[in-house]
Amino acid sequence: MRFVVIGGDAAGMSAASRAKRKCPDTTVTVFERSEDVSYSACGMPYNIADPHRDMNDLVVRSAEAFRKKQDIALNTGHTVTRVDTGAHTVHGIREDGSAFSCDYDRLLLATGASPVRPALPGIDLPGVLVLKSLADGRAIKAALAGAGVRRVAILGMGYIAMEMCEALATRGIAVDMVKPGPVLLPWMDRTLADAVQQELEAHGVGLYHGTAVTAVDTDGDGLNLATDRGDMAADLVIVAVGVAPNSTLAKDAGLNLGPAGAVAVGEDLATSDPDVYAAGDCADAFHVVTGRRVWIPLALRANRAGWAVADNVCGDLVRLTGVAGTAVFKVFDLEVARTGLTLQEAADAGFDPASVTITTRSRAHAHPGAVDIHVHAVGDRNTGRLLGAQMVGREGVAHRINAAAVALHAKLTVDEFAQSDLAYAPPFGPVWDPLLVAANQLLKKR
Amino acid sequence: MRFVVIGGDAAGMSAASRAKRKCPDTTVTVFERSEDVSYSACGMPYNIADPHRDMNDLVVRSAEAFRKKQDIALNTGHTVTRVDTGAHTVHGIREDGSAFSCDYDRLLLATGASPVRPALPGIDLPGVLVLKSLADGRAIKAALAGAGVRRVAILGMGYIAMEMCEALATRGIAVDMVKPGPVLLPWMDRTLADAVQQELEAHGVGLYHGTAVTAVDTDGDGLNLATDRGDMAADLVIVAVGVAPNSTLAKDAGLNLGPAGAVAVGEDLATSDPDVYAAGDCADAFHVVTGRRVWIPLALRANRAGWAVADNVCGDLVRLTGVAGTAVFKVFDLEVARTGLTLQEAADAGFDPASVTITTRSRAHAHPGAVDIHVHAVGDRNTGRLLGAQMVGREGVAHRINAAAVALHAKLTVDEFAQSDLAYAPPFGPVWDPLLVAANQLLKKR
Repeated sequence: MRFVVIGGDAAGMSAASRAKRKCPDTTVTVFERSEDVSYSACGMPYNIADPHRDMNDLVVRSAEAFRKKQDIALNTGHTVTRVDTGAHTVHGIREDGSAFSCDYDRLLLATGASPVRPALPGIDLPGVLVLKSLADGRAIKAALAGAGVRRVAILGMGYIAMEMCEALATRGIAVDMVKPGPVLLPWMDRTLADAVQQELEAHGVGLYHGTAVTAVDTDGDGLNLATDRGDMAADLVIVAVGVAPNSTLAKDAGLNLGPAGAVAVGEDLATSDPDVYAAGDCADAFHVVTGRRVWIPLALRANRAGWAVADNVCGDLVRLTGVAGTAVFKVFDLEVARTGLTLQEAADAGFDPASVTITTRSRAHAHPGAVDIHVHAVGDRNTGRLLGAQMVGREGVAHRINAAAVALHAKLTVDEFAQSDLAYAPPFGPVWDPLLVAANQLLKKR
Repeated sequence: MRFVVIGGDAAGMSAASRAKRKCPDTTVTVFERSEDVSYSACGMPYNIADPHRDMNDLVVRSAEAFRKKQDIALNTGHTVTRVDTGAHTVHGIREDGSAFSCDYDRLLLATGASPVRPALPGIDLPGVLVLKSLADGRAIKAALAGAGVRRVAILGMGYIAMEMCEALATRGIAVDMVKPGPVLLPWMDRTLADAVQQELEAHGVGLYHGTAVTAVDTDGDGLNLATDRGDMAADLVIVAVGVAPNSTLAKDAGLNLGPAGAVAVGEDLATSDPDVYAAGDCADAFHVVTGRRVWIPLALRANRAGWAVADNVCGDLVRLTGVAGTAVFKVFDLEVARTGLTLQEAADAGFDPASVTITTRSRAHAHPGAVDIHVHAVGDRNTGRLLGAQMVGREGVAHRINAAAVALHAKLTVDEFAQSDLAYAPPFGPVWDPLLVAANQLLKKR
């Protein structure tokens, strides 16, 4: 069996490692465009926050280890340019310009996603950077190493933008965040989003939502952003307006694409060609609440899908039920988390949704150190099902959201979830867990 | 409708308040033995830890507020001595020795539990105290207020003993813990229990498990504990060897009793007499994993059961599916949590259990500040169901356990739970949440 993997990040290397471990007779060949494999991409903002940490700390396993210890033919600096599904062959080009090709019995597309660069004059100027690959992280860190960067403009206000904002502020750099949309975190309940906005403002972050950048220019030592609301100066610009799936290879090979142009896969991670799998940020998934295809590129799914592909390649038939869209991020001292559907997503999916937003405390009555926890919960009036939850607070949010995530996987009703026997001790929460308070309130909306 | 409640703590006052709110025409009468109602009993160790905090801080709502603002006939200092289910009447005695009686249409027994005092010579000496009621807490705090208490012996090593241990150590008091059983936290996996033991020892706590106290004596200024392994000196002794349900009224009234002598109730909280309910620490519950009756007296269940009784009294038929035995407690800097069955409990309940114990980290690869998290998980080989989980760590345990608790309520298999889309960000955990790492390992044991 010849198993070929395109892409050497989370999904690709998870699949390659597990396949080699599980069915050692398989020849496992990986083609990776860059020189970096198997690193903690999500850790980059935190690494960038600390000038004394080496970006290579984020490498989980070196290319050499994969080659020598695991007998994986790992080819870095190899860009695959075409997949011939009929001939079961991939074709590509090396860094030196020479061509290569490789036959496969089973193929995994783990090509990831790429940061979107808006089509603006000046978007390719030096000093306008993105954050996706380890090379991107190194470039940002190198740019910050000099003393010249005192003010950074971040295009975008998503979670990577927020994490970069905190990282830069930690280094004493002033940050402005800009985006054309008028609403901060539009998927979030307003009470919760307001708490995030207050946290950003309390740390001196300039927030310019509803502001469209029209061009970037050099301006003496620095950069100037022309916007529809005036000019904005920055020593560095970070573009964090989102990512798009790298699905050109799949599209050119005639494979079906799903939402956002991601590669469409079944529960077994197979594409429309049964010998070709896709996993990680390039592939879609089924949403466990709606049953519909979604594209929510996150790290756990990438790792899990990589493993499942390896299992299927090795003959253990594994199916992944899907994703709940569970995510958490940190904004200075706030923990922000979500799982499942927003009110709007629920309505769009054909539910008859109701929602509540409650504020309670992070510790028991009279326990010192308690802070607010805001919870937003969405349920379906027709079936009584819990559909989604969002939480914001200074403590007790990041792991609490998982209880709601499991409830979504289990398709629990709000009533069933409200009956959950959750943990209580005064240092860790009120008797009625914040999620239960929200669920109890939501029951009244049925 | 005349609704009478015996006991004015969590279950009793939850029921009384909700009944009055939900069906205001109901006459709600509460008889409470002590003068304290509606306080955070679980908060007492943390209050005791701080000499500057008033014990009354723990009162959530005063007796006056219940009387004046909620129109509840709350009679403190009233001890009910007999329930006549035939005549629908309760009889009792006031603090001044006078008798009272009261007719009911529906009755709630919310009589709580009492601390067990082992039958030892000297167990009733001054300076040998228990912790259950607010009066108990005040007595301990008063005893500690003098400068004379430098060393305390705690009988018992359960979670209240652990919390008192931390409280006393916080006040600079040396603590010895003693119990006859040879094993610390016998319900806990050994790897996890060892971590707790190390935490206690690191804080200088003397641990004497396998040591039976045979008598307590006064000895000059202090107390002396005679044990089968020699004498032990203490300025104060705290007895925390467990609690027993206050079910004498129920037993004398001919109601059915369940495990540990707790009042047996159905999912609707009714006892074997349909006009008499029981809720809180005096009542049993169904375990959501085994379906069997259990007695696990914890605060959330008490509050939830109180509400459910009120709903049923008011004609909204509510059924509680049961408890998972989810609990968390803090031992100095450790968070210790469990839900569901232990390996032994699973075997006793007729499952064919397998278990794993894993150690992973509380934050992502290369993220600063990560510490160990130990997870023990139990599953059933026959059905594949998840049966229980335990966790110990310095962060990220208290709320994580809830994900497993919800999985138990939903009767998920280990495989289904392992597919849960849990939250990931580097400051809050590894890509594979510790619970998922355990579940993935447990899958291999099927």
